[in-house]
Formats: sequence, C-alpha cells, structure tokens
Amino acid sequence: MTTDLEIARAATLRPIAEIAERAGIPLDALEPYGRFKAKIGTDFIRAQAGRPEGALVLVTGISPTPAGEGKTTTTIGLGDALNALGTRTMIALREPSLGPCFGVKGGATGGGRAQVAPMEEINLHFTGDFHAITSANNLLSAMIDNHVYWGNALDLDIRRIAWKRAIDMNDRALRLGTFGLGGVANGFPREDGFDITVASEVMAIFCLARDLDDLRARLGRIIIGQSRDGRAVTAHEVKADGAMAALLRDALMPNLVQTLEGSPALVHGGPFANIAHGCNSVIATRLGLQLADVVVTEAGFGADLGAEKFLDIKCRSAGLAPSACVIVATVRALKMHGGVAKSALGAEDVAAVRRGLSNLERHVENTRKFGLPVVVALNRFTGDTEAEIAAVQEAMVALGTRAILCTHWGDGAAGAEELARAVQGLIAGGTAQFRPLYPDDMPLADKIGTIAREIYHAAEVSIPPALVTRLKRFEEAGFGRAPVCIAKTQYSFSANPALMGAPSGHVLPVREVRLSAGAGFVVAVCGDVMTMPGLPRVPAAEGIGLDAEGRIDGLF
Amino acid sequence: MTTDLEIARAATLRPIAEIAERAGIPLDALEPYGRFKAKIGTDFIRAQAGRPEGALVLVTGISPTPAGEGKTTTTIGLGDALNALGTRTMIALREPSLGPCFGVKGGATGGGRAQVAPMEEINLHFTGDFHAITSANNLLSAMIDNHVYWGNALDLDIRRIAWKRAIDMNDRALRLGTFGLGGVANGFPREDGFDITVASEVMAIFCLARDLDDLRARLGRIIIGQSRDGRAVTAHEVKADGAMAALLRDALMPNLVQTLEGSPALVHGGPFANIAHGCNSVIATRLGLQLADVVVTEAGFGADLGAEKFLDIKCRSAGLAPSACVIVATVRALKMHGGVAKSALGAEDVAAVRRGLSNLERHVENTRKFGLPVVVALNRFTGDTEAEIAAVQEAMVALGTRAILCTHWGDGAAGAEELARAVQGLIAGGTAQFRPLYPDDMPLADKIGTIAREIYHAAEVSIPPALVTRLKRFEEAGFGRAPVCIAKTQYSFSANPALMGAPSGHVLPVREVRLSAGAGFVVAVCGDVMTMPGLPRVPAAEGIGLDAEGRIDGLF
Repeated sequence: MTTDLEIARAATLRPIAEIAERAGIPLDALEPYGRFKAKIGTDFIRAQAGRPEGALVLVTGISPTPAGEGKTTTTIGLGDALNALGTRTMIALREPSLGPCFGVKGGATGGGRAQVAPMEEINLHFTGDFHAITSANNLLSAMIDNHVYWGNALDLDIRRIAWKRAIDMNDRALRLGTFGLGGVANGFPREDGFDITVASEVMAIFCLARDLDDLRARLGRIIIGQSRDGRAVTAHEVKADGAMAALLRDALMPNLVQTLEGSPALVHGGPFANIAHGCNSVIATRLGLQLADVVVTEAGFGADLGAEKFLDIKCRSAGLAPSACVIVATVRALKMHGGVAKSALGAEDVAAVRRGLSNLERHVENTRKFGLPVVVALNRFTGDTEAEIAAVQEAMVALGTRAILCTHWGDGAAGAEELARAVQGLIAGGTAQFRPLYPDDMPLADKIGTIAREIYHAAEVSIPPALVTRLKRFEEAGFGRAPVCIAKTQYSFSANPALMGAPSGHVLPVREVRLSAGAGFVVAVCGDVMTMPGLPRVPAAEGIGLDAEGRIDGLF
Repeated sequence: MTTDLEIARAATLRPIAEIAERAGIPLDALEPYGRFKAKIGTDFIRAQAGRPEGALVLVTGISPTPAGEGKTTTTIGLGDALNALGTRTMIALREPSLGPCFGVKGGATGGGRAQVAPMEEINLHFTGDFHAITSANNLLSAMIDNHVYWGNALDLDIRRIAWKRAIDMNDRALRLGTFGLGGVANGFPREDGFDITVASEVMAIFCLARDLDDLRARLGRIIIGQSRDGRAVTAHEVKADGAMAALLRDALMPNLVQTLEGSPALVHGGPFANIAHGCNSVIATRLGLQLADVVVTEAGFGADLGAEKFLDIKCRSAGLAPSACVIVATVRALKMHGGVAKSALGAEDVAAVRRGLSNLERHVENTRKFGLPVVVALNRFTGDTEAEIAAVQEAMVALGTRAILCTHWGDGAAGAEELARAVQGLIAGGTAQFRPLYPDDMPLADKIGTIAREIYHAAEVSIPPALVTRLKRFEEAGFGRAPVCIAKTQYSFSANPALMGAPSGHVLPVREVRLSAGAGFVVAVCGDVMTMPGLPRVPAAEGIGLDAEGRIDGLF
C-alpha cells in the first residue's frame, strides 16, 4: 500500500504565493517560510476588519475509538471538494505537536489524498509556533523562580505555584520532579513538572486571542499561583507578560499551506481538547471567514468534547456563528461502540453497527441543541459492507439527516463531492440559529451541570464541597461569566472510558477545578487527565531518519 | 544617545534575495524565512564542493572585561569595510541564544552602525535552529528514560547517565533536580538537570558537522552514559540518532542575513566557548569561503580560549587554514587589565594602559604561534585620550604589528577602512603558515599541558591521578587523536578570574575531564564552569514588550 508520506512526496506543490493569491492574499502580505509555507502579515489581517464573513462549517466526530475516524482527513477532503465545486473555501486546522510524532500517533496532517503539505515540515518544526509557545511558557517559569530567588517581594508560596514548565516532547520523566536542588545558588527547591506544550495555558490563550493586544492582556492575567496569604498572583505581577508577547509576536501570524489538491489551508495553534478547548486559532478562523465563502474547520476528540468546546468556548468568545456541522463516523468505529473488539472488525456485523449507532445518534442530537444543522460523513474503509453502510444511512434518515459515504482518502476531492453538496445545501438553507448551550451568567457549577445533563446524559454531577467553594471563589473574583472546559475521557460520554455507545444515568465526578484566567475559562477535571504523554515501548522515533537523498523518512 | 535598536530600525533593509544574488547565491537556492532572512539550500551547498576558497580572517580579542571590547561589532565593521573597498566579503557569525536576551547580556547582533539585521528576529527565534537543537537534545533524553522504563535492555546505570536535558533559557532552578518522581507510571527517579542549549553537545556537533551524513554519524557517537558494567553507551544504541538528525535537517542549512550596510552575513550555530569550541558552523564558514574572496569570522571569549579552539578544534577538524588574525582591544579594557576599576575608567591613565598592554601583547604572541599574521583593532570609545591611544599603538609597533583605530560603531564601514586595508595587506602578503599548536598524536594529557604552557603561560598542570587514568581510558577507547577543549574562566590566562593582565607561573588545575565523542573533542574542565546561567535581580525580560505598532521593544 502506498503510505501517506509516499503520496505526499509524489504530489507537486505550487509555490505558496500562488496559493495565497488565489485565496485573496497578496504577495506583500506573506512572510514566506521556505517555499511552501508562509505566515500572513499582521497589517493585512488588520486591514480585513469589518469585511463580510463567509460561512463556518465545523467537522467533528463520534466518540473516538482505536479504529480511527478520520476527522482531519474529512476536513481536508470536504474543503477540497467545496473548492472543486467552485465554492471559495479555506481549511482551518490545528498544528501538529512534535511529541506525538515520535510516539505512536504519527503526524497530524491528514492522510491519503486528503493531506496538507509539506507534511514532514508541518509535522516537525513547521514555522516554529510551538517552540515560541514553549519559550514563552518557560520564560514565565524562569521569572517566577527568579522572583523567589531575589527576595520574593510578592511573597509567593512556593508550595502553591500552579504554573508548570512545558516541553513539546512526550517525556514521562518530566511529569513530576523536585527542581532547584544543589544549594543556595540554584534557588529554593520545590516540586514542579512539565506539561506537553499543547497543554500549556499559553497555547489556549494563543488560540483564543483576537490580536496582539488581547494576547498581551490575556498573558498578563495568567494566575501563576498564590501568595502566602492566599492571594492569586498573576504573570503581569512578575512582569513576564511583555516579553512573553514579544516571543509570540511572529507566531501569532497564521500559517498558510496547501492541500495536495491545492486548497489553501490555515494551520495555526493546537491546544489539547481536554484541559483546553482543542481548536485552531481564532485569528486564523476569522481571517479565513473574511477571505473565503466557506471555512471548514475541525475540533478535537468527539463532538461531546470538541464541538461543545468549539461552540461554547471558541465561538462564544470570538463571536463566531457556525452555519453547519459535519459529524464524522466510520463503520468500524460504530462497530466498536457496538461492542466489537478491534481484532474482530474484519467480519461483517450489522447488529453491532446498529448498537453502535447510539453513539452517533446522540452526537447528532446534541449538536442540534446548539441550533446547527448536521450531516454525517461516513468515512469509508475497504472492509465496510453494503449492509453495514445501509444500516448507518437508514438510521440517519430516520433522524432527519443523512450519512454520506466519503472516499476522499483514496479519491481526494471527488470522494467528498456528495458531502460538499450536502454542506452547500445546509449553508444555503440558512437554518442555522447558533446558540451556546448555556448563558454567560449561569453559575459555574450549573454550567458544568448543564453540559453533563444535556451533552453527556449524566444523571448527576458530583462536586465535592471544597470544589463548590472554589467555584464560588472564582465567581467572587469576577470569573463567573467564564465558560467551563470539561476535561474528561474522550472515549465515552461518561467519565469512564470503558462505557462506549451512549451511556445514560451516570455520575460525572468533578475531581478538580482550575481557573485558566488568561484563556478565560474554568477547567473542571473529571477523571484522570494526562498532560504529559509518555513514549511507547518502541517509539516511532526509532524509525525516523534521513534517507540517502536527505529526505525525512519514517513519519506517518 | 541613539540605541542599537533605533539605529537598526532606521535602516532600510534590502530583500534577502538581492543580498543573496550579490553574494553569488541564486534565488532557487534560498529558503526564505520572512523577507530578510533565508536559509541556503543543501543542493546548492553540495554543488559548491571543490570550488577554490577565499581567505579566512579570524577576529578575536583580549581577555574580556566588563568594559566590553566589541568583537562582533568589529567583525561586522571589518566585513562592511572590505566590501566597501571592493573585496567580496562574507561575514560568518554565531547565532544569539535566547536565554541571555532576557538576562543581562542583551542581544548579540553587533551594535551601532555595525549590526546584522533584523536584530529583533535574529535575537529571538531567528530561523528556529536553536529550537531544533533543543528538541534533538531532549528527544535523546526522553528516549534514554523511555529505554530504562521499558526494561532497560542496555542495562544503563541511571546513576551514570551523563546526558542532560537542554533549554534555551537562563533558568537556575533547572540546574539540578530529581526527575521521574510520582510513582511507577513516571519511570525511575534519578538526578538530572538542564544545560542551556548552547552548552549541549548537539550544538557543538551541529557546528562541526561537514554535512548531514557527518551530523548523523556524530549524533550516533554521543556517549549518553554507562551501563552497570561500565561500558559507554551511545545515542545510536538507544536509536535516537536518526530522529535527531531529522529534527536538525533544516536547521543545518546556514542562515543568510545582511548587515546594516548590506554585506551578506552567515549567522549559524553558536556553541559555548568554555565546554565547547565557541565558533559558528563549519558548513557556513566553508560555504562563505567558496562564495567570497574573504570570510571574516569571530571566536568566543579572548584569544586564549576562542582563537585557540577555533584553530586547534574547528580549523583542524574542517581542514581550514586562516590567512590572518585580528585581535580586538579597547583602551578601557586595557586599563582594567592594568588594574583600574570600572567606575574609574573615565579618567586618563596612560600608565594603566601600559600595564594592561601585557594582556594584549601575550595574545598577539600566542596567535603567532599558530603561524598567523596579526593586526590589532583598537575599538575607539569616546573617552579614550590621544595619549592612551598612542601608548597602545607604540607598543604594537614595538611588537612588529599595528594597532589600528576603529570607529565602525559610529561610522560604519568608513570607521574600519584602515583596518580593512591592513587585513588586505596581510592576506596579500601571504605570510600565513597555519599550524595547530599540537599534533593529533600527542597524548591527551600532553595536549592540555601544551596549551597551558604555550598559551596560558602556566608553570604546571595539575591533573589528579583519577583523571589521568580517565584520559588514558579515552585514548584506549580510540579518542587519543582528539583535540582538547579547555573550559576555564575567560577573564584570565590563568584559572583564577581575578588575575588580569598577563599572569605567569600559575598552576592550571584540571577538575574534570569529559569525552564529547560526537563533537570529537575531550573537555578538560579547569575551575567552575556554568552551563546554565541564572537571571539577574532585574532581568532584561521585564523591559521587553511590544510597542503600539506591535514592534518589539526593550531588546538591546
């Protein structure tokens, strides 16, 4: 079989200036990074303010399974297909993280004929945005410890410094350590750890900031920890926000690349979808809407996490109103939701598909609660049988929507043409009436309850009294209007990853609440959330290297 | 007074393609990074192999003092002046490290009218090379701990893992810690620490590698630690070298920028000058020589460290033969070597200048031991008096050379014209007969002794018996032909930073010896060597930020 890397290498890319020009971006607005990547200049972006905006289409998915769904691939395929049909379309994606590239996940640039390119460069350093975010995060850490070292005028309690260091690497050894050892010259020993860069609040801020001024203000609001008398201390108070903004200035310009079929794609930012909101940058999405008739974007994990956060956090904060939502499913993943083991997916099992459809159906119904029309993209795999596909399609018709078979992985734009026509229809229909799930002025605990009830179908939320008090404190401190960002397993509507399908009546246990004051949301941690992955027994890195022509091999 | 940043901003930069074209680099060999920075493609570099090479001129200095000397500024001014005189000249510099930018040092892009630009970008992320080096360093660390976690097939002794993590930040809290805490899932607790990226062996390797293949081979030879039975274990054995090379592939292409007067400058790599050799990359230097009639480059610290390592490590390893050497001095710094405190530098003190000349004289004599003709650049400051200047000039004439007054900081190329003519004369004279200080086949301990005697004028070297044994082991392991890299204070010819001027008869105490097997040298640590700086009480970062136009302010 041809690999994604081979397909990507076989493609002839056009100069990025040509892609930009077709997207309405003039040459002098480009900051090229090599020949096939460019950043889009701040002056040009400012000049687009007030332009009428195109339609926003969100691609989300069923609850993920090890069988894979193909959300990024579908986002790219749909964008290519819309462009092929003559609708001026931009694709807006998240940037891949370096860490998982060396682990098991491989790259995050799509697959088959639905890829953004150049894949090796996008998957590795790209234009350096994540390195800039890592540097800004760690400059703040260095300035915190330096503040304590030189007298601690803010009376920071070193046991209560919440700000962690960051690295764009899967490195479990850095999860927890005692730093500052070695004597007086090295400062005060304290516990700290590293999160992977995508889990840093700087990443979430980067992706929610409207512009440089907003970025700087949000960075300043970051709460780094508490003083000995319990006062929240901010990044502004240790005077780190200016230098952090300087480190991020160039990174904040969105990155333009192309799909293998020549569609323009903005690939910018990439926060975790558990403790953060999991979408590409507001700046990129907005610019896309100002330049194109349609922007196709994606959200992390399944619709219960990704779409909910996209809609309740990103769209609310940025004032975006999507026109339609695509939910990606596969027969294989539905079978897993229906109880089939990954090793048994090869055999036809229509009954299992029918059982697993409960998961898809709930995501469709949930998404409608936001006032959005929905269509399902059924991402076809070779082993899918006609009967299995028919079962999905019938169920979706019964729900008043359609499951459209897509083959963009193998066929490119042509494989998503029917999906594109359906999306065109939803946009033209104008039925979208976007509304967030809960109002700004609902108490924080009730916001968690609303999501748990409406989206997860939980019977109740368990919030320990200490956390109820903490939420009240957040409200008293002026953060009561913030949306909530629920960090829980992506594999289930519940907090138990083993409960596939569409569980109901469960209890959502809130184990921790955190205030991401710079990002502007309150995180409710429900279950174990890993903010620093580890490498597997045989990391992908072992197979990565340079071939005889100096090309990068082993990325997938 | 106009600041460096203001002068830099007032300059009109030319598109980098224009600078490249004048330097003989065609457009299709460029990988642009924004409009004023570009990397030079590997294919073009390969195609230059075998071309006749221009003359190499090294700019080095007296032993540094807090008064400042202006080595980078002189390198740039001399390059500009040579170009102004019609000699096709390339400048080859080190890249600045992000860490010191936020500390006290400020940027490292020259000053006044002798700067490389765009200074904010070069000083911050530039083209991401240091981020790539940091990532490669830390991928190796993650793979080491991951190897131990998954069974430790190589039987690594976790107490003897020598490979440290790296970060491009001044952060004293990271010097020493206990990582891997928190239980079974996080691995085995062990001591580790972070070096600043410029101190990583990956940086030294990057700067000594001839090409990608050599880079990969050197990365594989890195010794990461020992097994329980005392065997040296390499990066190749944990299978990290391929992925590390992939991470470094693009970074290895040299960066082209311009001076404020439009000279082409290759700014590439930047290893520490204590535990490493302190010069820009071999790839950039060689490419410059293939493209230009003259390459002007600099080495770190004073000539005892920087020039010695440039000549004995870099030139030896790369087969480079310099044509001339410029030693930078200032009246102010000579007065400090003559015993004047920094606060008293304002007053004329010819006697102090005469005393301090002992430092300059020894550097001149030392450099001649390598077979190189020498000229002194006397970098003028406004407070210097005629009598002080005359004292320096007379002393240099007495030594058979000249001290040429330079004012490139304020006057640009015109201020270094006389220096440029002198350098032209040295090159045209053809008197250079470059020879390293010691032959490859001298025993390692004798190499240390030779440098101590010939360059530092030490009476003896003190090597504890355990380290003598260790050096013998390195020789038995096949590293006996390696050059030695002495890490000691840059402020004195001795290992005592307080001994200014030209001390003799001292003892050089070797406290530690390390094998940098990938870089290909043996490090002899003589005194305290700091591989992770801290931030000062008021870090420069506090004053760095964005102005109303979104420009970066506070870099100096």
